[in-house]
Amino acid sequence: MTERIRVGIVGYGNLGRGVETSIGLNPDLELVGVFSRRDPVTVQTAAASTQVFAIAALADFTDKIDVLILCGGSKSDLPEQTPELAARFTVVDSFDTHAKVPEHFAAVDAAAASAGTVAVISTGWDPGLFSLNRLFGEAILPQGNTYTFWGRGLSQGHSDALRRIPGVAGAVQYTLPSESAIERVRAGENPALTTREQHDRECFVVLEDGADADAIREAIVTMPDYFEPYDTTVHFITAEELARDHAGMPHGGFVIRSGETSEGVNQTIEYRLALDSNPEFTSSVLVAYARAAARLAATGATGAFTPFDIAPGLLSPKTPAQLRAELL
Amino acid sequence: MTERIRVGIVGYGNLGRGVETSIGLNPDLELVGVFSRRDPVTVQTAAASTQVFAIAALADFTDKIDVLILCGGSKSDLPEQTPELAARFTVVDSFDTHAKVPEHFAAVDAAAASAGTVAVISTGWDPGLFSLNRLFGEAILPQGNTYTFWGRGLSQGHSDALRRIPGVAGAVQYTLPSESAIERVRAGENPALTTREQHDRECFVVLEDGADADAIREAIVTMPDYFEPYDTTVHFITAEELARDHAGMPHGGFVIRSGETSEGVNQTIEYRLALDSNPEFTSSVLVAYARAAARLAATGATGAFTPFDIAPGLLSPKTPAQLRAELL
Repeated sequence: MTERIRVGIVGYGNLGRGVETSIGLNPDLELVGVFSRRDPVTVQTAAASTQVFAIAALADFTDKIDVLILCGGSKSDLPEQTPELAARFTVVDSFDTHAKVPEHFAAVDAAAASAGTVAVISTGWDPGLFSLNRLFGEAILPQGNTYTFWGRGLSQGHSDALRRIPGVAGAVQYTLPSESAIERVRAGENPALTTREQHDRECFVVLEDGADADAIREAIVTMPDYFEPYDTTVHFITAEELARDHAGMPHGGFVIRSGETSEGVNQTIEYRLALDSNPEFTSSVLVAYARAAARLAATGATGAFTPFDIAPGLLSPKTPAQLRAELL
Repeated sequence: MTERIRVGIVGYGNLGRGVETSIGLNPDLELVGVFSRRDPVTVQTAAASTQVFAIAALADFTDKIDVLILCGGSKSDLPEQTPELAARFTVVDSFDTHAKVPEHFAAVDAAAASAGTVAVISTGWDPGLFSLNRLFGEAILPQGNTYTFWGRGLSQGHSDALRRIPGVAGAVQYTLPSESAIERVRAGENPALTTREQHDRECFVVLEDGADADAIREAIVTMPDYFEPYDTTVHFITAEELARDHAGMPHGGFVIRSGETSEGVNQTIEYRLALDSNPEFTSSVLVAYARAAARLAATGATGAFTPFDIAPGLLSPKTPAQLRAELL
């Protein structure tokens, strides 16, 4: 067996925990440790054998880690951490604020290029795998339309909006792809659809004692921006049902490209994810791109990359000859 | 506008015609001409403006073509043509004999590496896009199973087998993915399935005058290898119905990866193609990889490549900055 790729995890929430578990499924990778801003003794890892260090300890690991997987949030953690750590390590992140990708890429590229490291940003599934499918779709079928549908998936922001309504004791909200919109796209209609026409919203709400169900339903379905523009369904459930049936973090969705290659000849490409756990899946994608990042760094590449820049074969532990024989 | 990529087509059957049409949808590509083994005056191209040359005339085009798209068959054309032409041009093919990929790759790589050209083999959808999805699936979900289903699609070999039965005046055969098998996979059962358990066969047959329908149906469903092992349905139709309803070459299928990221947490990735025209779609993939091949050659790369070795961004006419801003 060749030498294993040595991986560090920065940040230990749902994503960091998913990365820890995923590394255990990949025998060519070795987890050096978790690096946290919290006091290491307070961090409970999934595996008892996982070592936890203060983030400042990273200074001692420059020669002991091949790639760092950054598991912070896109809002405030990654815009600072990715450039800063790319100046010292090869890194991978799942930065997912679509509108700020160019800015993030520029900052990370400057740091990685001058340090001679590799930094792969915006891995995960959207951005990430969905982005790749949008690219393949329009490159192969230049005359056509691309549709991205999200769901059925838990939306944290919309769940929080429900919980802020007086009289609501607990709630979750799922975003659903609209079945009627999907049917129109699959039928090759190439409809013009806004994001809100493509999605429905389903709410599961626990009422406080004495709360008025009808008034709360009305407050929900008329809430501007969040629910009013959508086809919104509200279900009232018990606290026990909420805990039992809605503790997971499912997500997923579709990317569909529908196009014509000649007059009346329709071709459809559809990419679908159905995920029991959004963070565990994102973690798995991060881990595969960490392998690619370490390999790119070993060949002397430097600078920032996105999934668009990475040859797919680099994601697999198999050799190019194995891949050609087994998977092509 | 930057200079266009100059493309030549070698071979003019369904695939060559599809490539000709596809180049017309890609403004960054320019069709130099079709090169055929037939007498050029006998070749009827889709566009009257397309120039047709004898294949021997390629000798005069070394400096006038950036990439050749090879549209011959995998059985006898490409094993000879791809290495031979890779010694003189940057080339792309859709070699699709899975079992012979390693051998073909080695021959093409030797020719391209010594000539300093780029040769991309086995583009198309299977091998090609389906292969990429098999690779992504197992790299991201190492603990799981991959299933490839083909269809609903016209099978040339099985249609030919029907036409050889005495009393059959005309026939087509479609391969269908088995609905029950798909349901088991989607449900996360991870069943062990052979290719034949995953597929059904549907035959549309025109009888010769006086032929015995029951005897022919029996001859079909008991034909070893071709039909006997499958759930096979036979429909008898008229010559008019055959011509009207079965002249197209639809195909498609699914690649499904189903795996667990932790105990009981199931994640499913599904990639689906629904194609009105198999050759036109394959042509569209060839054209996108021709763009990538010309770009790789321009950066000084040499040797044989497969879709596994090609960064997806190279397939798109957009710049890396555009791709990050618009599609990531």
